[in-house]
Amino acid sequence: MDPNVSLITLGVPDVEQARQFYVEGLGWEPILDVPGQIVFLQVGHGLALSIFGAGELAKDVDPTLVPDEAAGAAQGPRGVALAHNVGSAAEVDAVLADAARAGATIRKPAQRAEWGGYHGYFADPAGTLWEVAHNPGWSVDPDGTVRLGPVD
Amino acid sequence: MDPNVSLITLGVPDVEQARQFYVEGLGWEPILDVPGQIVFLQVGHGLALSIFGAGELAKDVDPTLVPDEAAGAAQGPRGVALAHNVGSAAEVDAVLADAARAGATIRKPAQRAEWGGYHGYFADPAGTLWEVAHNPGWSVDPDGTVRLGPVD
Repeated sequence: MDPNVSLITLGVPDVEQARQFYVEGLGWEPILDVPGQIVFLQVGHGLALSIFGAGELAKDVDPTLVPDEAAGAAQGPRGVALAHNVGSAAEVDAVLADAARAGATIRKPAQRAEWGGYHGYFADPAGTLWEVAHNPGWSVDPDGTVRLGPVD
Repeated sequence: MDPNVSLITLGVPDVEQARQFYVEGLGWEPILDVPGQIVFLQVGHGLALSIFGAGELAKDVDPTLVPDEAAGAAQGPRGVALAHNVGSAAEVDAVLADAARAGATIRKPAQRAEWGGYHGYFADPAGTLWEVAHNPGWSVDPDGTVRLGPVD
């Protein structure tokens, strides 16, 4: 597993409130903005920050959660995950296997993601969530700008 | 406040356990390694991950905490903070003021840091911790490599 963070996800109680803080308050330009659902912001060379519902993040990790459980599963600062993007589905499998060998707990086995890519989640020994993802619509320009295009 | 994350801090219950996972398990090369205390790893262009005690992170945010309180204040995945590095102490002041204007709660007013720099903390509306720091010993090479040198 290469040492790289591609995306920092903040699972928040209120996406619109967080969006207002970052986009309206701090003036950060969204890469992608789906009102009330998710916002992506560029926060470094090849690095994005996403603002996502805490319950939605919990459900993305464990799709078996019913909405009430999901809402309780990740609140405020607990709802943080780091993402590590790779170039193919096979690499997702390999990275999750590497992580498990290194002592991680697989929280979501590698699988097709709802958004069209392929992903899985592991938790490091302290419980920090890492999503390992192949997103064919994600690319990084030579200057480090993250592009989020459609996934066919 | 520029949209940039410089450092992701994981406040963990057991630094040595987390160090073993990242350094021994995943094979990530430390930028700086203070056994049992803190480890810095390169995780992107100009981006580092630090592994730090949850109680130490809580105490860095609120130095008035006694050790027992600090240990209870940040556990596992709750102990996450993002860092935004700037070029001077004056910029730390300005960014904290910007953040407060945007709706952040100042958790630690700007002040000299124990490690020789100057920093403060704010929490976004969801409680996510951001450290705003000027570290004269931190630099980023043209290729994005983070250097952590001594602070005079």
